[in-house]
Amino acid sequence: MTRLRAELSHRSLDGFVIPRADAHLGEYVAADSERLAWLTGFTGSAGMAVVLDASAAIFVDGRYTLQVRDQVAGGLFEYCHLSEQPPGDWIAQHMAAGQALGVDPWLHSEQQIETLRAAIEKAGASLVLLDDNPVDSIWADRPPPPGSPVVAHPLDYAGKTAADKRSEVAGELAKQGADAAVVTLPDSIAWLLNVRGQDVPNSPLPLSFAVLHADAAVQWFLDPAKVTAKLRAHIGNGVTIHDPAELGPVLDDLGATGKAVLADPVTAASWIFERSRAAGATLITGPDPCQLPKACKNPVELAGARAAHARDGRSLVRFLAWLDREAEVRAQAGDPIGELEAAGELLALRGENELFQGPSFDTISGAGPNGAIVHYRAEEASSRPLGLGELFLVDSGGQYLDGTTDVTRTVAIGAPSEEARDRFTRVLKGHIALARARFPRGTTGSQLDVLARYSLWQAGLDYDHGTGHGVGSYLNVHEGPQRIAKMPNRSALEPGMIVSNEPGYYKTGAYGIRIENLVAVVDSPAQSADEKDMLAFETLTLAPIDLRLIGPALLVADELEWLNAYHARVRAAHRDTLDGAAAAWLNRATAPITA
Amino acid sequence: MTRLRAELSHRSLDGFVIPRADAHLGEYVAADSERLAWLTGFTGSAGMAVVLDASAAIFVDGRYTLQVRDQVAGGLFEYCHLSEQPPGDWIAQHMAAGQALGVDPWLHSEQQIETLRAAIEKAGASLVLLDDNPVDSIWADRPPPPGSPVVAHPLDYAGKTAADKRSEVAGELAKQGADAAVVTLPDSIAWLLNVRGQDVPNSPLPLSFAVLHADAAVQWFLDPAKVTAKLRAHIGNGVTIHDPAELGPVLDDLGATGKAVLADPVTAASWIFERSRAAGATLITGPDPCQLPKACKNPVELAGARAAHARDGRSLVRFLAWLDREAEVRAQAGDPIGELEAAGELLALRGENELFQGPSFDTISGAGPNGAIVHYRAEEASSRPLGLGELFLVDSGGQYLDGTTDVTRTVAIGAPSEEARDRFTRVLKGHIALARARFPRGTTGSQLDVLARYSLWQAGLDYDHGTGHGVGSYLNVHEGPQRIAKMPNRSALEPGMIVSNEPGYYKTGAYGIRIENLVAVVDSPAQSADEKDMLAFETLTLAPIDLRLIGPALLVADELEWLNAYHARVRAAHRDTLDGAAAAWLNRATAPITA
Repeated sequence: MTRLRAELSHRSLDGFVIPRADAHLGEYVAADSERLAWLTGFTGSAGMAVVLDASAAIFVDGRYTLQVRDQVAGGLFEYCHLSEQPPGDWIAQHMAAGQALGVDPWLHSEQQIETLRAAIEKAGASLVLLDDNPVDSIWADRPPPPGSPVVAHPLDYAGKTAADKRSEVAGELAKQGADAAVVTLPDSIAWLLNVRGQDVPNSPLPLSFAVLHADAAVQWFLDPAKVTAKLRAHIGNGVTIHDPAELGPVLDDLGATGKAVLADPVTAASWIFERSRAAGATLITGPDPCQLPKACKNPVELAGARAAHARDGRSLVRFLAWLDREAEVRAQAGDPIGELEAAGELLALRGENELFQGPSFDTISGAGPNGAIVHYRAEEASSRPLGLGELFLVDSGGQYLDGTTDVTRTVAIGAPSEEARDRFTRVLKGHIALARARFPRGTTGSQLDVLARYSLWQAGLDYDHGTGHGVGSYLNVHEGPQRIAKMPNRSALEPGMIVSNEPGYYKTGAYGIRIENLVAVVDSPAQSADEKDMLAFETLTLAPIDLRLIGPALLVADELEWLNAYHARVRAAHRDTLDGAAAAWLNRATAPITA
Repeated sequence: MTRLRAELSHRSLDGFVIPRADAHLGEYVAADSERLAWLTGFTGSAGMAVVLDASAAIFVDGRYTLQVRDQVAGGLFEYCHLSEQPPGDWIAQHMAAGQALGVDPWLHSEQQIETLRAAIEKAGASLVLLDDNPVDSIWADRPPPPGSPVVAHPLDYAGKTAADKRSEVAGELAKQGADAAVVTLPDSIAWLLNVRGQDVPNSPLPLSFAVLHADAAVQWFLDPAKVTAKLRAHIGNGVTIHDPAELGPVLDDLGATGKAVLADPVTAASWIFERSRAAGATLITGPDPCQLPKACKNPVELAGARAAHARDGRSLVRFLAWLDREAEVRAQAGDPIGELEAAGELLALRGENELFQGPSFDTISGAGPNGAIVHYRAEEASSRPLGLGELFLVDSGGQYLDGTTDVTRTVAIGAPSEEARDRFTRVLKGHIALARARFPRGTTGSQLDVLARYSLWQAGLDYDHGTGHGVGSYLNVHEGPQRIAKMPNRSALEPGMIVSNEPGYYKTGAYGIRIENLVAVVDSPAQSADEKDMLAFETLTLAPIDLRLIGPALLVADELEWLNAYHARVRAAHRDTLDGAAAAWLNRATAPITA
């Protein structure tokens, strides 16, 4: 902090903003961009610090209000809630007229910068867009930028050639009157060019930028050292490779020749807009043109997703059988399974699977009250034993070459309480209502969200997170544009999209419940009375739902029918791939139930 | 048309736009503003004509595609769909560079004018805002403006004094930094000043404008002849009365003194903005500040709504008993009841009620296939007999001094088909899901909409209208800002709001089904497990739902329980007010059913 303040003073700045972000403004950040963690100690996936001459604050959302107090010294930083105490307001209160606040235009969207600017101008202070980041000047042991080689994503998994994708997206650009699009999302570029990398944890992303032209040519900006000769052959003639430093001059050229350039105001850094505007380009703002086609998986990707989920489900079945065999016995014997051990066991089982590349996110393995912490991550200090009479929640996923998985199961260790069974059954009713839904084309996830909450609402309960997020195909486990959530979302659910179905219920200090399957949006098989083309969800995840936590009397016939049919599918999918003990367990765990 | 074109030519205009609108841009239009109907013959509640030198078009939405062909000569006007063939596009195709299109800035919002302007400027044409309306110059027998006297709406029904309302809304203005608000919605003014009138059909509106100042003073612009001495005493000192022609000069004064003026960009005419801007006012755009407090009924208004619904429901019970006694017998005797006769009978029964002032909208009385026309209005030529084996849909409502009602019932004449029972039961399941819903504060109607559609969607069916609209208190039967519909709406449902719950199903050429009750948003009675303050709906409408159309096997226990409890309420509400035959009928019509 002292060094940062000296650096700011040296630059005649009175303050600086440090968001948890890199130049791609996404969820996945490489080590060399973890400036917020380096400066403050805070390792959450979202947050922001503001450092002024004599004061500083760190802003996090509701998920991290406890964690930030553990990790960040209260003497150095005031703790603030990101949305309830917006950084702009805090800054306006703490800065004086005439002072200057620096921001790195690579790490904020234009809208974020405008919000900050409006707030501090009220205080008579001004915002300065910096050419380089002051933290980098003082970060002595800053890790090098990630340099993992980029590899081809074969057509057997991608299902469509990069050349075809480039042509199709270029066609969309032309429709919008754009001569070129600046693509800043690493997963968009990975999808567009059929490439993968290892630059960040949990997601096979090569970090890079691209400019896609209306003639389908792509200029790809990444360290040439990451590109092997084999990869060059894979990407073909339509794609030229450029040093990242060339992005600026390329934008300058587009501007100088009066081109219309599309960029996404939500996901692209302010720097892109500043540079393009200064160069004289006509800016067209709109969603990243790869987002929608990437979200709508093609038949090969969907087949891959089904195959990946079959393998992943088998690991989960083996894990749940192990847990059922061991957890109660060991708890009674005084040698309980711990959260970390359980997570390790599950990862080891996944590791035996064909095409497995690693976890798709940090496993959430929460026993008892830890299960109520929605973004809990077990560590040695926090790891709890799986105690008798408690619930254990495990949310995990795998990256496979043919698909990305994400699944949550909540299981009872020993006999669950009546209350837990009631809450679990309500969560299950919501899960089933969504899983069974048929809906007309054009329906958005926000329209469907209430189906997952209705049963909880009837009891005066709710959960404070979205119901479903998009999932990539061997890519990010969180992707847009679709979402199932309370907040209005204009992106209709379209065939091929993969989303999670994950209602939950959390009782602070006691237990957490979440039932999460991934589902694919599909054309619903026609029924005789249908007057419209209906869409529906195909559940991809294949793992049993704990029958001991279900109160069958709370389920209506349609719900029981869904549950029994789902369990029959799970049984059929894994029966022939399991050893005798696991197969016998699966038979019991998926036995039909009645009211 | 010839005269209009001559008039346009005389004014050096190449075209003119005639919307179905008056200066208040609402649904309710007085006879002197029915320019579209006078010019084209089209009497629908929404639409627009464009007349150019050599061509003309009329734009209507899906509700009116049949009606417009009946009423408007195809040789004079091209028929266009309002949203699929937007007027701007048509105009751009039919106008030449250099031509001028006139619009009356009193009859369009600014956004509507900007949309038109953008479209025609593409064609090189220009938009001219006119000082007076060319149609008025040629409309020889134009009715005089409505001159009905304005009457006080007593505190016994209003529940809050106008002085208190003015203070409260003025407080909101101050919060928004506004010195004054221009209020253009007649129902907002009627609510604010506790007055009612008879200027338009079906809704007790006095047409007028008002300027509310931050000190709670109101300048009220209406024909002074409408204001009796008694009314002057009622409105008190804080309200001054001005000739409507003074509105312009008052806006000029506000601008000249540098005032900040709030106006609603959705509901206020472009003229208001043009005039204020020209005068130098600082314009603050935001929702009409009366809308939200008007929508949240106070306890006196809610008590009035309950009382009005009790009386209204009794009339409906008597009507349904009459229908049940007569319809089948008369159909068998070859002397069937007609749609107009049924509507007349219902109106006559309502007319016997205390405090009844008239219908709240034109009754929809549709037998068989006419029931499938969502905005059907029976006339001599179209009136069908209520035939055996058919469904009869009747959507009607009353204006009472203590409340506004709106109710739809669908009944079987003779034995219904299995299909009709299946569809009716699905509509009922949706109705019940919404009626039973508990939901956290902050929930919007768009979040809940799917509850009313789920059961239909499961069968591949849907209905092409919203699920619920706001309803006024002895005011407009359609009011905002809340709505239950597929389209996202940011207005949360708040205690005191009254909305309709009206899912339906329509089979073109065969039958229509709709089950509509009004419900009030209330604090949900607390239950032991509640972790949040929940809201819920209290059903206001008290009339039986036709048991012959229900397939009990399709209902689950919660749904049966709701239906039986609702019918028990209906029975208890009316039992003591009916004669023997009607009471006996009601007992049968509300008997508990089982699966």
